[in-house]
Amino acid sequence: MIEKLKELLPPRRVTTAKHDLDNWGRDWTRNFVVAPSAVVFPETVEEVTAITRLANAEGFALVPSGGRTGLSAGAVASHGEVVVSFDRMNRILDFNEADRIVRCEAGVVTANVHAFALDRGLFYPVDFASSGSSQIGGNVATNAGGIKVIRYGMTRDWIAGIKVVTGAGEVLELNRGLVKNATGYDLRHLFIGSEGTLGFVVEADLRLAEPPEPSRVMVLGVDRMQDILSVLTRFQADVALSAFEFFSELAVDRVTRHRSLARPLASSSAFYALLEFDANAESAALAAFEESLASGWVSDGVMSQSDAQARALWALREGITESIAPETPYKNDLAVRVSDVPGFLDDVDRAVGRIYPELEICWFGHIGDGNVHLNILRPPGLTLAAFYERCDAMSPGLFELVAARGGSISAEHGVGMLKRDFLGFSRSSAEIEIMRAVKTALDPKGVMNPGKLLP
Amino acid sequence: MIEKLKELLPPRRVTTAKHDLDNWGRDWTRNFVVAPSAVVFPETVEEVTAITRLANAEGFALVPSGGRTGLSAGAVASHGEVVVSFDRMNRILDFNEADRIVRCEAGVVTANVHAFALDRGLFYPVDFASSGSSQIGGNVATNAGGIKVIRYGMTRDWIAGIKVVTGAGEVLELNRGLVKNATGYDLRHLFIGSEGTLGFVVEADLRLAEPPEPSRVMVLGVDRMQDILSVLTRFQADVALSAFEFFSELAVDRVTRHRSLARPLASSSAFYALLEFDANAESAALAAFEESLASGWVSDGVMSQSDAQARALWALREGITESIAPETPYKNDLAVRVSDVPGFLDDVDRAVGRIYPELEICWFGHIGDGNVHLNILRPPGLTLAAFYERCDAMSPGLFELVAARGGSISAEHGVGMLKRDFLGFSRSSAEIEIMRAVKTALDPKGVMNPGKLLP
Repeated sequence: MIEKLKELLPPRRVTTAKHDLDNWGRDWTRNFVVAPSAVVFPETVEEVTAITRLANAEGFALVPSGGRTGLSAGAVASHGEVVVSFDRMNRILDFNEADRIVRCEAGVVTANVHAFALDRGLFYPVDFASSGSSQIGGNVATNAGGIKVIRYGMTRDWIAGIKVVTGAGEVLELNRGLVKNATGYDLRHLFIGSEGTLGFVVEADLRLAEPPEPSRVMVLGVDRMQDILSVLTRFQADVALSAFEFFSELAVDRVTRHRSLARPLASSSAFYALLEFDANAESAALAAFEESLASGWVSDGVMSQSDAQARALWALREGITESIAPETPYKNDLAVRVSDVPGFLDDVDRAVGRIYPELEICWFGHIGDGNVHLNILRPPGLTLAAFYERCDAMSPGLFELVAARGGSISAEHGVGMLKRDFLGFSRSSAEIEIMRAVKTALDPKGVMNPGKLLP
Repeated sequence: MIEKLKELLPPRRVTTAKHDLDNWGRDWTRNFVVAPSAVVFPETVEEVTAITRLANAEGFALVPSGGRTGLSAGAVASHGEVVVSFDRMNRILDFNEADRIVRCEAGVVTANVHAFALDRGLFYPVDFASSGSSQIGGNVATNAGGIKVIRYGMTRDWIAGIKVVTGAGEVLELNRGLVKNATGYDLRHLFIGSEGTLGFVVEADLRLAEPPEPSRVMVLGVDRMQDILSVLTRFQADVALSAFEFFSELAVDRVTRHRSLARPLASSSAFYALLEFDANAESAALAAFEESLASGWVSDGVMSQSDAQARALWALREGITESIAPETPYKNDLAVRVSDVPGFLDDVDRAVGRIYPELEICWFGHIGDGNVHLNILRPPGLTLAAFYERCDAMSPGLFELVAARGGSISAEHGVGMLKRDFLGFSRSSAEIEIMRAVKTALDPKGVMNPGKLLP
């Protein structure tokens, strides 16, 4: 296998060195075995095709590898697979001003697309914590979301076309940058979010947008979780929100201590909502705030008066993950309908409290799109192993609560190996059978990322 | 078959009367044989499932039927199929204010969703000429577009979830109204635009939006087609457009005569652009207009000063189809990338002029999304049959011009039977093979709308 790969690629682009296998064989997860056979670095679509056809002929498995910032082990090679890294396919190929479409190779880093757009007075709105290392191909394969989904949607909404190499080694050009194209099944959308199980995304046509207007940030104190929906509905009636985040008092406590930040409000509340909107909506937002205060939904609030203040308020939200890292939390990325968030949080609080009253939950997330990040903090005396064992044992019960509300066991982090065996909590057995049949249609020999996504 | 259907449904909801077969067996096309065996009117998802399972057991074919406003014969029953009409599944089932999602049965008429949203201070932005009869299920099955795609996108962009009955008779609840849901292949998007070939869309969760601001309409005279892209780019830099339509002098001539309308501008131009934008962008739009005038891209322009004037300007665009109907035009709904529109129009003008210099082309369409409507007018003297024969003979050459630019042979009207045998001009043979395999996965016995979409 290695020898045949070296016939396809120059030897320096085929590596079996231990430290290379360790580096390119894993993503940001740390709980999975890392054991690829080799890592290869194609530079062209033709090379990717040749590698895929060789895998079909020789019967070895492939793991597509981008920025390796995933959190569900979708890009971990645990079983002797060949890792196909897109690090050397990192060119921006084309840009058209009238179409506002930029064509990228899969290995282009997300932040480079942001910079490219900015240089042309435009904006690529998909942004998240790992933008400095994540790659466009991985974004497409996982349908990456992020902090501005309420306004701009997911990666899916910005993909005008993709070029893929299927598991069978066929090159498909899907949609080719068209806005309207009513010619049958939109296979582009099948590949978006397929986590490398159908084939390789090798190029993507990304739409760019107008840059956003200057913005304001507001942080509101909310005592009762159910009131947060009244606040959301009231603001949305008059204010186009670009973010509607929430976090709990526990999160504020941790982040203000960890970063030595000022508390946002003089009083403390059980929950906080962080809203972002265009500066020209300031007076509408203030009116919505006054009404929320008068209705008793919020207890206090603050609005940024400068960009520095806006950044300081955002730091309260963005610093949470880092501030609780020392407590090695058990994390879960879940989604329900927006209207179900308060009830769902209550379900989980009660279920965890019933089983392990000593465990503390640090809640935060993107409430505007129904996506909550559950973080259970490890109590001081408990070992990491004992803590994870305890939490993992709660996972099925937690996923049952998600399923009862028709929610998603993975809002934006994907399934990978981490949640593969729990997929049935969010997809029916009929859906999973159809997914298997779709996979067989595109990857008949099963060479693409086996053991990921499908149970 | 009829007897068994009558065991599933009350007799009055199974009809074989000639006038019923004629009525429900066809869409807006008139060139296809209409010959269904029966028309059935289910009222529940369970009845749709039972009908589908019966079709699988007995080996008869089904044609899903909505508002029957299609233009590609996607809902025509030509071969003794059973037509499954959604006319009696027309209830709005649920609405949630925080989610801004309305759940509809498939047979809800589009205009009723518009009215429902308006009553709640909200807006359903997918709108087109047949909104008064088209049904939501058909909109999903064809991924309906329309006049405001440049701002609001297609039906696909407003579907938070769908309930479907697959060709195998399985009920799937796809995405269930979630914003974020990274749990494997998004089968929802596979059904959107599948033209009834994979199963029935029985319910849809539609997102509603804030109503648009008051708008202004501008009509600009443009002499050279390529300049229209400079105009588009210049305006888009500062003005959020909700429409960017174009039409030719020939179209203005016909529509102003037919409806006794005033010409928009004192002078005449080869082409006209119609722009719509929010009233608060008026001064930015005027600046963009001044610059376009100074650059020689536009020769003249007018902006609406009242809603009545805005409607009068829109009438120039909206009345075109009706005004050329007496000339029984040969129509084709095509798309290329926005940047390719001028070159493509030129290709077609020259190709038609070379073959039949006496034929006149009336161009109009949604240039902001690359969608052009080609209308070749029938010369007085030429019989309908001779004219269509001549035009049909040109179709493959026309589709070759589309394919050469990577365009779409059906921008928003779908494939149906009309363009089935030309699908290869827009989709590769590998894609078509994958589509067939996907169809087999969802409709293993091929009971769903056979003879449509796939060649």
